[in-house]
Amino acid sequence: MFSNRIDGLRPSPIRAILSVIDRPGMVSFAGGLPATQVLPGWTGTVPQHAMQYGPSEGEPSLRAVVSDRLRRLGIDAPPERVMILSGSQQGIDLVAKLFIDHGTPTAVEFPTYLAALQVFRFYGARFIDVHAAGAGQARLAYVVPTFANPTGACAASAERDALARRCLDAGTVLFEDDPYRDLAYEPCDREPVAARMGGGSWIYQGSFSKTFAPGLRLGFLAASADLFPPLALLKQSVDLHSSRLSQLIVHGAITDGGWNARLDELAAFYRARRDAFEEALRRHFGDLARWRTPGGGLFYWLQLHDAYRVDTRTVLDEAIARDVAFMPGEEFYPDEPSLGTMRLNFSHAGAAEADRGLRALADLIRSVAAR
Amino acid sequence: MFSNRIDGLRPSPIRAILSVIDRPGMVSFAGGLPATQVLPGWTGTVPQHAMQYGPSEGEPSLRAVVSDRLRRLGIDAPPERVMILSGSQQGIDLVAKLFIDHGTPTAVEFPTYLAALQVFRFYGARFIDVHAAGAGQARLAYVVPTFANPTGACAASAERDALARRCLDAGTVLFEDDPYRDLAYEPCDREPVAARMGGGSWIYQGSFSKTFAPGLRLGFLAASADLFPPLALLKQSVDLHSSRLSQLIVHGAITDGGWNARLDELAAFYRARRDAFEEALRRHFGDLARWRTPGGGLFYWLQLHDAYRVDTRTVLDEAIARDVAFMPGEEFYPDEPSLGTMRLNFSHAGAAEADRGLRALADLIRSVAAR
Repeated sequence: MFSNRIDGLRPSPIRAILSVIDRPGMVSFAGGLPATQVLPGWTGTVPQHAMQYGPSEGEPSLRAVVSDRLRRLGIDAPPERVMILSGSQQGIDLVAKLFIDHGTPTAVEFPTYLAALQVFRFYGARFIDVHAAGAGQARLAYVVPTFANPTGACAASAERDALARRCLDAGTVLFEDDPYRDLAYEPCDREPVAARMGGGSWIYQGSFSKTFAPGLRLGFLAASADLFPPLALLKQSVDLHSSRLSQLIVHGAITDGGWNARLDELAAFYRARRDAFEEALRRHFGDLARWRTPGGGLFYWLQLHDAYRVDTRTVLDEAIARDVAFMPGEEFYPDEPSLGTMRLNFSHAGAAEADRGLRALADLIRSVAAR
Repeated sequence: MFSNRIDGLRPSPIRAILSVIDRPGMVSFAGGLPATQVLPGWTGTVPQHAMQYGPSEGEPSLRAVVSDRLRRLGIDAPPERVMILSGSQQGIDLVAKLFIDHGTPTAVEFPTYLAALQVFRFYGARFIDVHAAGAGQARLAYVVPTFANPTGACAASAERDALARRCLDAGTVLFEDDPYRDLAYEPCDREPVAARMGGGSWIYQGSFSKTFAPGLRLGFLAASADLFPPLALLKQSVDLHSSRLSQLIVHGAITDGGWNARLDELAAFYRARRDAFEEALRRHFGDLARWRTPGGGLFYWLQLHDAYRVDTRTVLDEAIARDVAFMPGEEFYPDEPSLGTMRLNFSHAGAAEADRGLRALADLIRSVAAR
């Protein structure tokens, strides 16, 4: 009854988890939720004209501001090749729609953002490790070089250069997803891969969900001249355009003179959360797992030591019963997962909650491993 | 380089037209734009919690209100089978994604909404006239029974019953698009086809763009129990959820006690516009074309008399040069168009503008036909 591509549609583990995280007493390390207390409120007036239909590519004023910021990152992104998205998840769907048929070789990091995997899989992608020798066959390479989801890794400058060069040489389209770049807690090379292409075909996208407010559903992309026109047609066909009200609010915030200070405050807030989380991790997981302290972003990536190496998908229900939610790391692998990994979000829970949740989770892992 | 389905991607004539309609002096009969003066403004406060990520299916409070209104129309739509969309265009994309592969028989009205045709064509639909004998083969039947786009027709009760029965008998999924139902200027049977199914597989969708504000990008769908779960998964994969702020504003408006009065005022406003448009049409097009006075919606559908029957697509550029935009009716046909048709929007232009625009358009048609 359904289309063939629906065979690739799988229920998202995120959905199941999101449905329980509002339960009183639940500590959630699962989603990539900003801390609610750093989200802006908004009080203001929406004029009638902003309630009318608007342009598919977005408000010219907001496109111009985004263009200006991207050009300062070295990206070849004039305003006419900047598109406002209804969140960067939309960019993933549009790009996948543009490129991926059944069997299309698609290079990704192993592991990588699970909602991107779901969309790519839905359109029929055949996955290749972007670091493997065969990656040159890929039509599309999806990467999150700066504070990757789920690992938190930040690619070094040489890696970024090498990736740009490989895409150019092989004629692979670069799709760089960069939602976390402003949440940097340590110095690290963050110059986009898209800024190193000097030609070729590429899409670079970012989000206002982490720097401003997810509930407004607003992101943006820029693309090379060969890709922008079909992406704009696809954007129109999926929702005509993004909310003008959301665009008006974000444009106001980004141009009010306080934006850079806001980003600094956010980074300071999340750095403190990360540091408290690190301490709690050492207390409770010091003998259970290893990890790298993430230099930015929203996640810790834990690898359980061999003695405790369980498929963490099998632990999730019991964890939720003990009022702690997390994302099994296995979900982030395109094919066969590496077992015994967990993605823990540190931005949403406060220090006391994080301590309580990590204690419960560590106890659970110990008892499951002992069975 | 692109996916196979991109072969079905064609530039939208709407895009080209939209890019010129803001030009000073331009009279546009092209889009389905509400009159800006009946759009709401909004002044208020958005709390922090509405800025956080929200549920994919939409805010429970808004889903409950929509459910209540749909059930009063006879539709089997409990809140858990109501989804909030980022505009009803999104519903078209989601449903097409769910059902249409290359060659999937898809029944539509000839003519019908061109942005639906574009999406269906993109996924590979093979079109069948929903009124033709072969329509029973169709997997999906897309219909706008109430004030159809572009014709403005309102299907009689017997037609609606027959359509519901044909879908049930043939196992065809009914996809009823109902954005104009509240813009009714004369009594006519508007009971949804989806309310007459009594079983089977169906999707019913509506929009807040015509009754409230297009710029917020908000619509909704309800679906039978077999179809709602995959549609919810698809919704999550395309944009996670719709703007919570838009949902908060619409929920406020729909529950403030003034909603029904608002709908009555809107209908009165557009009825007056329609009546003025009808008079201007008689003055300028009385000898050129025939039409039916639409009982609702936003459009007149003109069929040029034989002596003036030109392919109106060839007239558009010249019309725009004369400061009047319209939608060539030929664009609304799935395959071979019937020539000499025009869709004219009467909601956006005021009476004096409409008169000026129709005079210019009639003069142009006369001179083109005389060449």
